[in-house]
Amino acid sequence: MALGEFELIDKYFTRPVRRAALGVGDDCALLVPAPGMQLAVSTDLLIEGRHFLSTVLPDRLGHKALAVNLSDLAACGARPLGFTLGLSLPQPDEAWLEGFARGLFALAERHGCELVGGDTTRGPLAISITVFGEVPAGQALLRSGARPGDDVYVSGTLGDARLALEMFRGAVSLPGEDFDRVRRAMELPEPRVALGQALRGIATAAVDVSDGFAGDLGHVLRRSGVGATLEAESLPRSAVLARQPPEWQRRCTLTGGDDYELVFTAPAARRDEVEAAAREAGVPVTRVGRIDVEPGLRVLGPEGRLLAADLHTFDHFKTP
Amino acid sequence: MALGEFELIDKYFTRPVRRAALGVGDDCALLVPAPGMQLAVSTDLLIEGRHFLSTVLPDRLGHKALAVNLSDLAACGARPLGFTLGLSLPQPDEAWLEGFARGLFALAERHGCELVGGDTTRGPLAISITVFGEVPAGQALLRSGARPGDDVYVSGTLGDARLALEMFRGAVSLPGEDFDRVRRAMELPEPRVALGQALRGIATAAVDVSDGFAGDLGHVLRRSGVGATLEAESLPRSAVLARQPPEWQRRCTLTGGDDYELVFTAPAARRDEVEAAAREAGVPVTRVGRIDVEPGLRVLGPEGRLLAADLHTFDHFKTP
Repeated sequence: MALGEFELIDKYFTRPVRRAALGVGDDCALLVPAPGMQLAVSTDLLIEGRHFLSTVLPDRLGHKALAVNLSDLAACGARPLGFTLGLSLPQPDEAWLEGFARGLFALAERHGCELVGGDTTRGPLAISITVFGEVPAGQALLRSGARPGDDVYVSGTLGDARLALEMFRGAVSLPGEDFDRVRRAMELPEPRVALGQALRGIATAAVDVSDGFAGDLGHVLRRSGVGATLEAESLPRSAVLARQPPEWQRRCTLTGGDDYELVFTAPAARRDEVEAAAREAGVPVTRVGRIDVEPGLRVLGPEGRLLAADLHTFDHFKTP
Repeated sequence: MALGEFELIDKYFTRPVRRAALGVGDDCALLVPAPGMQLAVSTDLLIEGRHFLSTVLPDRLGHKALAVNLSDLAACGARPLGFTLGLSLPQPDEAWLEGFARGLFALAERHGCELVGGDTTRGPLAISITVFGEVPAGQALLRSGARPGDDVYVSGTLGDARLALEMFRGAVSLPGEDFDRVRRAMELPEPRVALGQALRGIATAAVDVSDGFAGDLGHVLRRSGVGATLEAESLPRSAVLARQPPEWQRRCTLTGGDDYELVFTAPAARRDEVEAAAREAGVPVTRVGRIDVEPGLRVLGPEGRLLAADLHTFDHFKTP
């Protein structure tokens, strides 16, 4: 089978365009943000063996490739509009493409985010997505707005994706049902798009957890010129992770990464509004600490002892 | 040397933002198209060994990675605004990065196109760029507007990039100075950004030549529901290519690819305006044929004989 590039685009990746003025098939796609809206743009490049395992089911990979990008829009409080897809494949495998497109478009349609352009080529398996969203001018959630006295929140739970990865690596062992659950967290993350939009005008800063809670919160602290104090035990975790040894719980929640939850800050006076936004979005949020004047991140263990945990963010060029 | 992802972004890819509301360093970049403007978006994924040779100088690769994307904006008549960069590298080689960034930003600055976001990772050498431009609403040059009786034009010359590739492959042999010249065409293509904008309101359809003249013109013909007739000898070529055997000249101009010239159509009544636009943009254009009612592309050889040349477009999944 020699499915050519153009046939492949036609067969799997051409959908009728609804919101964009012009979609797949011309030199450019044309987008028209509504008056008063800013266009939010984010891009991610996913490489086999680095960002996903070669054993992942193609529909789950299609989901995740878009989910990690939608998560960036969520962290800005933007409403998804569209995306471009660059896809490098070792060979045009129709069963793989069919699954990948199914997972990708199922998530895209749930968020009203349409494919507007792309590029396919033969090569190592790599997926490059750039997403576009819109946000009312001046209302985007930035990393730079946290102020001393603000509360620090995190959505959902942290650490399951890392626990699944450690299971694949053979470092931990889990019963089958627990493994299925944390594997779903790793392979099918749910971008917090509704929560991000509900937090506009309430949150002072936000970031999504891709590299690990401590490292990603660290970006907010540095950009805002502040510090934070929190208790390690306050970080929300699943029942599966809560059954693991304490050091695994701490490592997975603090530095796990691949969570795609939102970490955000809000004034203590607006706790009711944060709760209301979380209810509206249907996503639980947990207050985990507070913003301080003193720079740096202070993580307290049991009895208020300062932990000397390794809080370095996951860095793609530093890890082996 | 273990340069981390964040240090790498800071060192080589963080430039002050001018036009975008927010650039590299937050979850999203924020863009604000001017009122009445549509945003044109295009994306390309370049893989080592497939789209460029591993021997290419990094500054030339930086230039070309952006040039091929700017060429898509040119084919839409859009003015460049910004781009995102996804970069996968086997290791963070500072000399390579310094050269790549130099070539990339030199071209970006010439076109007022700023880097607004990106993603770097370790992996096989791959470059993913998504560019953004703006075009007055309704004025984008599309592939679908060619009408019977229109003239067919091409900018610059065709075929040098392919001749250089064949030299690298050992299929042809060229004197050193000739090789340098065609190698520049392959490695440092000049996107026809000014010409594309000058042709707004004049050209009825346009496409850039990336896969090969015949294949790319074929996209215009199919989308417009028309055909075309042209003489192979009329296709513009460099002095270097004109010294090659006739069959090489024909192959390189008709199906060579990687030219990044504009192929466009315009009503015969507007030849003066086409000439004026070309002068304004400082790019020569050549009238090479006409649009017909009958679908398909008819390429005539010497004495008006219909050539049975292989006009199939370069297809990334079909070539070996």
